[in-house]
Amino acid sequence: MKLVRYGNPGKEKPGLIDDDGQLRDLSTVLKDITPDQLGDKALARLRKLKVDKLARVRGAPRLGCPVAGVGKFIAIGLNYSDHAAESNMPIPKEPIVFMKATSCIQGPNDAVMLPKGSVKSDWEVELGVVIGTRARYVSQKDALNFVAGYCTVNDVSEREFQLERGSQWDKGKGCDTFGPIGPWLVTRDELPNPQKLAMWLDLNGERRQTGNTKTMIFGVAKIVSYVSQFMTLMPGDVITTGTPPGVGMGMKPPIFLKKGDVMTLGIEGLGEQRQDVIGFKL
Amino acid sequence: MKLVRYGNPGKEKPGLIDDDGQLRDLSTVLKDITPDQLGDKALARLRKLKVDKLARVRGAPRLGCPVAGVGKFIAIGLNYSDHAAESNMPIPKEPIVFMKATSCIQGPNDAVMLPKGSVKSDWEVELGVVIGTRARYVSQKDALNFVAGYCTVNDVSEREFQLERGSQWDKGKGCDTFGPIGPWLVTRDELPNPQKLAMWLDLNGERRQTGNTKTMIFGVAKIVSYVSQFMTLMPGDVITTGTPPGVGMGMKPPIFLKKGDVMTLGIEGLGEQRQDVIGFKL
Repeated sequence: MKLVRYGNPGKEKPGLIDDDGQLRDLSTVLKDITPDQLGDKALARLRKLKVDKLARVRGAPRLGCPVAGVGKFIAIGLNYSDHAAESNMPIPKEPIVFMKATSCIQGPNDAVMLPKGSVKSDWEVELGVVIGTRARYVSQKDALNFVAGYCTVNDVSEREFQLERGSQWDKGKGCDTFGPIGPWLVTRDELPNPQKLAMWLDLNGERRQTGNTKTMIFGVAKIVSYVSQFMTLMPGDVITTGTPPGVGMGMKPPIFLKKGDVMTLGIEGLGEQRQDVIGFKL
Repeated sequence: MKLVRYGNPGKEKPGLIDDDGQLRDLSTVLKDITPDQLGDKALARLRKLKVDKLARVRGAPRLGCPVAGVGKFIAIGLNYSDHAAESNMPIPKEPIVFMKATSCIQGPNDAVMLPKGSVKSDWEVELGVVIGTRARYVSQKDALNFVAGYCTVNDVSEREFQLERGSQWDKGKGCDTFGPIGPWLVTRDELPNPQKLAMWLDLNGERRQTGNTKTMIFGVAKIVSYVSQFMTLMPGDVITTGTPPGVGMGMKPPIFLKKGDVMTLGIEGLGEQRQDVIGFKL
């Protein structure tokens, strides 16, 4: 299933995308796509619905993040060796874990705002993993059973805030609007192997990132298992799994986002995002 | 006011501590102490209650974290110069910001569990700041107006996970049970100056940390203002503001937590915590 949340910010309704790509309303079935709706039983219930009985939604409403109430937005750093190289950082021996503020989460096509004083805002197309079942010290073998599904994430990053303002990256990762997620939550039954997905990002129509999840240093099962050794993963938590090469910081000379830019990005099977870059406003 | 949440984990009721130190029930007045109850208007409403009309709660029930639904648990690193020195790290030029997983939050007297394989778990008594009103790019002068109140926090930390497993600290800061908060949320009207509070921590009855918030490098107003430049602070977010010297890592030789240890800690006016240290269990 491709689950979505549609409507104005803070007032999204649940929906799904049918086999014809048509948005159908789910609000007669559940109130919202909340963490408690992401477990295997809850998803199995949705899967049994007769989709053609669900009302079609007209037009093309705004989409929100496909999960409401994300508790933790966890991120993995330098998880593609060629991105580590372009960042002038060593290939990690084990996953680097940091966090994005949940207040940065937004819909896949909402504008990305440059923070006040930002001169080094940058893009990162990433595979997002949405946890479906509480996961604590899970093995790599079992790890994918705790996943509800996958989504496209743009791990927008301010490099000066991240790298030049103290040792910890979180400062440059959780600015408002820095967490576009979606368009869809694609349930894991539709993606039994998350390690063969092509991914790309264009800036103003020019290809900047080209990658495939098959070149991750640490795959999704390893990441879920690994993170669960350090914190309990809760339903609705999102882990974004690192970016392939082609970020602005890695260009020679570096290129950073400016007002008026347009980012388009996508992952095979997970849908596309489009963000206008806008200047800072209070 | 001293607001509390009492009862079994996940089933806490709201309450307050009256002038005689007696726990009074607030559940006839509000459902829980949630982020939407922390703004100035909501707190003013509580302040008008006739406390002696509220039912007394018998016995000494368990206390939970005094705020339900903390969205972000933000932490400031090396904010006391002598703690930076004992950590062999330079005094920061601006606040170091990292995050604790919200899944580590627990009551002030709940047991602290050593993570699997932990050999360097450590203590940190800290002043916690609870945000009451959405704060975005606020000035240092106005910053305290966005604070609901203050609490005691033990920023429990696994030093190996934090410092020897990659560059980012979050891995060693958000393990389950690593976020005791409470006992009370003391509203800011009772603490007009948060920069003169004595603080202490004992391990097995022996004094390990002695400090005072007056020696913070960056004070509360600066921290709230500063963090609000990088992310929007939401009602219910907690910022823990760094620890004075005396952590286990700084001892010569270092001392770390072991099963059977007891931590007791407190901050002037904000109440005390007591945690038994227990071994890992699944």
